[in-house]
Amino acid sequence: MKKIINDPATVVADSLAGLAAAHADLVRVDYDPNIVVRADSPARGVSVISGGGSGHEPLHVGFVGPGMLHGAVPGAVFTSPTPDAVQAAISATTGDAGALLVVKNYTGDVLNFETAAELASAEGLDVRTVVIDDDVAVADSTFTAGRRGVGGTVLLEKIVGAAAERGDDLDTVEGLARGVVERVRSIGVALTAPTVPHVGEPSFDLGAGEVEFGIGIHGEPGRERIGIEPASALVERMVSAVAEDFPLERGDDVLLFTNSMGGTPLLEVYLAHGIAERLLAERGVNVVRRLVGPYITSLEMQGISLTVLRMDDRLTELWDAPVRTPALRWGM
Amino acid sequence: MKKIINDPATVVADSLAGLAAAHADLVRVDYDPNIVVRADSPARGVSVISGGGSGHEPLHVGFVGPGMLHGAVPGAVFTSPTPDAVQAAISATTGDAGALLVVKNYTGDVLNFETAAELASAEGLDVRTVVIDDDVAVADSTFTAGRRGVGGTVLLEKIVGAAAERGDDLDTVEGLARGVVERVRSIGVALTAPTVPHVGEPSFDLGAGEVEFGIGIHGEPGRERIGIEPASALVERMVSAVAEDFPLERGDDVLLFTNSMGGTPLLEVYLAHGIAERLLAERGVNVVRRLVGPYITSLEMQGISLTVLRMDDRLTELWDAPVRTPALRWGM
Repeated sequence: MKKIINDPATVVADSLAGLAAAHADLVRVDYDPNIVVRADSPARGVSVISGGGSGHEPLHVGFVGPGMLHGAVPGAVFTSPTPDAVQAAISATTGDAGALLVVKNYTGDVLNFETAAELASAEGLDVRTVVIDDDVAVADSTFTAGRRGVGGTVLLEKIVGAAAERGDDLDTVEGLARGVVERVRSIGVALTAPTVPHVGEPSFDLGAGEVEFGIGIHGEPGRERIGIEPASALVERMVSAVAEDFPLERGDDVLLFTNSMGGTPLLEVYLAHGIAERLLAERGVNVVRRLVGPYITSLEMQGISLTVLRMDDRLTELWDAPVRTPALRWGM
Repeated sequence: MKKIINDPATVVADSLAGLAAAHADLVRVDYDPNIVVRADSPARGVSVISGGGSGHEPLHVGFVGPGMLHGAVPGAVFTSPTPDAVQAAISATTGDAGALLVVKNYTGDVLNFETAAELASAEGLDVRTVVIDDDVAVADSTFTAGRRGVGGTVLLEKIVGAAAERGDDLDTVEGLARGVVERVRSIGVALTAPTVPHVGEPSFDLGAGEVEFGIGIHGEPGRERIGIEPASALVERMVSAVAEDFPLERGDDVLLFTNSMGGTPLLEVYLAHGIAERLLAERGVNVVRRLVGPYITSLEMQGISLTVLRMDDRLTELWDAPVRTPALRWGM
């Protein structure tokens, strides 16, 4: 294993130290347990908190800042954070308006975030959880009962973060989050496997000409292994998987998010995005907003994912609202 | 070779189509020859144009927009654009105030950009070139007489783009660019090799435990091959190479840019950034601004580079100025 690290046991804390140094104007990092919170102040309104195993950066730690998350809870690589870490993030950010925890649907995350929410509720805070399960690839998976939470998480965090920022109350923010969960679908593919630092070997074997179709963000198996094919065919397969699941209909307005799994060159990511735009246009679907780049990754895994969110005016306004975080920034 | 492409011969145009679809509010793409220009209008003041081989995205095409480049000229992967393509970008963006061409020091780029500048001058336009050669690794290299141009290019384009945006004249913008070239130094390392689509095989062989120290952005050889070592030792080696070249002095104010070569997880990039910040602080150097992430890449190559720019109030003001491009955006 060749990695730019000191010790697999301290890789998350060591990386957070760099995040804190680079973005002291936006985030503050506490260690023991590891949490990342906004540098400016606790939430005046609803606090939006997310987290999960590390190795998917910039998710979630890179999304802390005005207009998005108030706190992020990074676990060990590909490992759920503990309930006490989630609780620390709640305590550090949450006031009378309460908190919404955005949880990707993995068994460990759901258990630990819900436990933390219960403990916080017992202390008198109004803390709700919303579970996102946007991956259409498989019904159940290695670490998951039900569908996995993947790229839709990024869009959800931006939208509910904007709602909290403008002062929406917890009922509204929670309702909005559940609405986004219903309206978003994703699918991913992998060309190579990631290597978890404390494991030291690739997470799975993939042949020289093989692609894992429907990959999870921890390298969990997808629907099938296929041979490498031209990008047009691969992206058509991906768009179809998403469109048939919804189903997407002619005239729908959508946000299209073409994500790099980490190791794929941006040249290829934009190439795939262009194909996906064309295929959606051919289906009569209007792409009204876009996000392209590495926003939810799986370490150095090569591959991409497509996420489609059905938009309406309310969601578009929240998507367009100013945001200022290490990884997503516009309008301020 | 596994890549998300249709045909190596059309990979650049196919990718530009995705860029155009994703960022129609910011850029317009012309084909035959391939150029990317600002969507809003030709420059009212000085036009800042850059370009070079593709495969380093987001450099340069991702830096077109208000506050940075007016035009970018993407050649084939790792191949200089032709003079007529550079000329097309000049024609599309340049008015009476003239243009500055930002050229990375590679023999083909220098020749082709200077030829285009001469042709444009013959047509009555005031077009100057500035060559950046910030890589301290080696004196000459595979495609270069003199030092290579690498990460400093990103910082240069941001700073001179801001100067052009506020209306500085060509003499001023050119002088500023030459000042940045004198004040910036970089060094890179590679853990893996990139694969150029039309070649189909990795650009070089690197052993399972080996690191190329002083790598170029096309996989050109560096100073030496070393064994993989802890990040602290590797980053110390990098900081020393840069600091000794300047030399950096106690009390200097700098911008520290920790760049991913493309395939390295952000977790590791931030980890390296944190170490570099600490090492500079130990030398009494003040890091006053930062940039962290994949901004000048070498396809899927794993590795990082460090760039240090000595700052003054004038450069800090230009760095902080609003920018709105596909890859760098703040303040608007």
